[in-house]
Amino acid sequence: MPSPARWTAALTLSAAAVCGPLALPAAAAHAAPAGPASLYAPTALVLSVGHGERAADATAERAVTLSCAPTPSGTHPAPAEACAELRTVDGDPASLSPGDGVLCTKEYDPVVVTVEGVWRGKRLSYERSFANPCVKNAYGPAVFAF
Amino acid sequence: MPSPARWTAALTLSAAAVCGPLALPAAAAHAAPAGPASLYAPTALVLSVGHGERAADATAERAVTLSCAPTPSGTHPAPAEACAELRTVDGDPASLSPGDGVLCTKEYDPVVVTVEGVWRGKRLSYERSFANPCVKNAYGPAVFAF
Repeated sequence: MPSPARWTAALTLSAAAVCGPLALPAAAAHAAPAGPASLYAPTALVLSVGHGERAADATAERAVTLSCAPTPSGTHPAPAEACAELRTVDGDPASLSPGDGVLCTKEYDPVVVTVEGVWRGKRLSYERSFANPCVKNAYGPAVFAF
Repeated sequence: MPSPARWTAALTLSAAAVCGPLALPAAAAHAAPAGPASLYAPTALVLSVGHGERAADATAERAVTLSCAPTPSGTHPAPAEACAELRTVDGDPASLSPGDGVLCTKEYDPVVVTVEGVWRGKRLSYERSFANPCVKNAYGPAVFAF
């Protein structure tokens, strides 16, 4: 015969199965691989790239939007991959590091990348210049490939 | 008999009809109500809103992406209306003014809005606090309604 603890657990699970979906907000209808926190903390970014050393001096040649919750979306060409890459560094582009085995020439043709907006409710403002586009892509093969 | 000038014009038009569409980039396949400039100059924005007087001190309670070219899109709830409203001020949120006949209480419950990113290739960084949400919505009934 089941113990009272088991009964309680079974009842709780049944109640969750019945009531859980009704209690969740509409956004929960979308799968959120990053976990429950991303259902409520907004993530919306805009990324730009231009030639130069400083964003203030460089024309934004390309700019894309990227949203990572409830589902990856935006004008970024690969939102799912870009969001996954940002999750590996907890939304901090400064923590991205180049992958092993990536070879780039030492040509100096600087490009500057900006990432601005909100990552899980926290404001984000990032700017970094790379010696050339190959180096940029080594640091962010998904997120900086736009 | 047609003049040489007319022949030249006719030939030029024929050449444009044959070669023009082939020379356009893929983005031209999308309708761009804002005109040819928006086909090439990127527009990608991220907007946030939070309670407080300064964005640095206020948690971003909501944040949405907005892209206006080649077509309005983003997690903003009304991208087409928001882009149209921004076009009326040439992408400068500081030039938005409250519509006639909007009445708000004088309650002080400040909200701060930020708009960052790129408007037609030009970097944009805007922050403004409003006395309460009603005043915010009076200034940007479409663009700030998220």
